[in-house]
Amino acid sequence: MRTLKQRILDEATVIGTEILKVDNFLNHQVDVEFLTEIGAEFYKRFGQEQVTKILTIESSGIAVACMTAPFFKTPVIFAKKVESRNLVGDTYSSEIYSYTRDKSYRVHVSRNYLSVQDRVLIIDDFLANGKAVQGLIDIVNQAGACLVGVGIVIEKGFQDGGNQLRKSGVKLESLAIIAAMNEKEIVFQNVETDAD
Amino acid sequence: MRTLKQRILDEATVIGTEILKVDNFLNHQVDVEFLTEIGAEFYKRFGQEQVTKILTIESSGIAVACMTAPFFKTPVIFAKKVESRNLVGDTYSSEIYSYTRDKSYRVHVSRNYLSVQDRVLIIDDFLANGKAVQGLIDIVNQAGACLVGVGIVIEKGFQDGGNQLRKSGVKLESLAIIAAMNEKEIVFQNVETDAD
Repeated sequence: MRTLKQRILDEATVIGTEILKVDNFLNHQVDVEFLTEIGAEFYKRFGQEQVTKILTIESSGIAVACMTAPFFKTPVIFAKKVESRNLVGDTYSSEIYSYTRDKSYRVHVSRNYLSVQDRVLIIDDFLANGKAVQGLIDIVNQAGACLVGVGIVIEKGFQDGGNQLRKSGVKLESLAIIAAMNEKEIVFQNVETDAD
Repeated sequence: MRTLKQRILDEATVIGTEILKVDNFLNHQVDVEFLTEIGAEFYKRFGQEQVTKILTIESSGIAVACMTAPFFKTPVIFAKKVESRNLVGDTYSSEIYSYTRDKSYRVHVSRNYLSVQDRVLIIDDFLANGKAVQGLIDIVNQAGACLVGVGIVIEKGFQDGGNQLRKSGVKLESLAIIAAMNEKEIVFQNVETDAD
C-alpha cells in the first residue's frame, strides 16, 4: 500500500534494529481517516471471504480493527490480555510469549462471541515473530471457526512470523513489509499486491 | 440516548452490585455500527466545541473514541498504561488508582501529541469513581491544552465520579446514567438530554 509506505518513510523513526515507532498515526496518536483507507484496503483483499467476525488483540489492534469492520459490516472482537472481573465464565484462551517484554501472557475470548459458524479475519497493527497472531489462530481453532486470513498493517519481514504463517497455508496480507531497517534507512520488500 | 439504554436493558448483565457487563457491543465484542451512532451523539453534544484532539485511555476507550473521531475530523490519542520501549522520550503522565484492581498505574501521553493549541475532548466507555478521567484531565492540564468536555457512554451514577466532575465545572455528557442496579433490575437516571 503505497500511501502507507510513504507515511512510514516520512514519519516513522527506527530505534536500534527492532523498534519502528509509528506513534504519529497508528498506535498512540491514531489518524482515523488514514486508518479508514487501511480498512478499505483490507476489504479489497478479503472482501470476498464472507467474513463474519474481525478478531484482534488489545490494545493497538483495536483501532485498526474498528476502522476496518464497517467495510465488512461485522463486529470486532478484541482478545483481552488481562483476566478481568468483567470477563467471567467460559473463555477460549491461549498463551502468548512476548519477546518485547520477555514474558508470557494469556489472552481470552468469551465463548459467546466465536462459534463454528464464524468466518474470522484476524487484524493487527504489527507482525514480527508472529506469536500474537498464532495465539489468536489457536483461539479461532478452539472455537471450531474458520480462519479466512490475517491482515497486518506493518510486517517486519526480517523476523520470522510472516513466513511461518505463509508456510502453514494462512492467507496473510501485510500492507507494508519491511525487509530491513536501521536508524538511517527503511527498506521495503516488494510484493505483487504492491501495485496499489 | 434511548437506543443505548434499550441495549443495556436487553443485553447487559449485572454481577453483584458493581459490575455491568456490556461485552456484547461495547468492550469485548464491539458493534462498530452502533458505536458510530454513539459517535454521532457525542458530535451532537460537542460538535460546536472546535475539538482538535480526542483523548482516551487503553483499552476499551479506543473503540468508542475511534468511531467518534470521524465526526470531529480529529485524531485520537490513547493514553498508554504500560511504559513500553516504543514510548520513549518526554511524556505527560499521571497516576491513576484502580478500585477494580486495587492498585495504581501510571498512564503516559507523548508530549508530541498534545499542546497549548489543542482543544481536547476526553472519551471513555465507563465512568464510575472517575479516577481514569481525572488522570486524563491532569494530562490535558500538563499540556496546557483546553479541556472542552468529557463524553462517557455509561456512567454509574451511584458512584461519585460524575458528580465530582460536574461540581468542578467540567462539561460532562454521559449517554446513559445508571441510578441503581442489581441482578434483577437496572434503573436509569433521567436527564434533560434524554429527549433523543
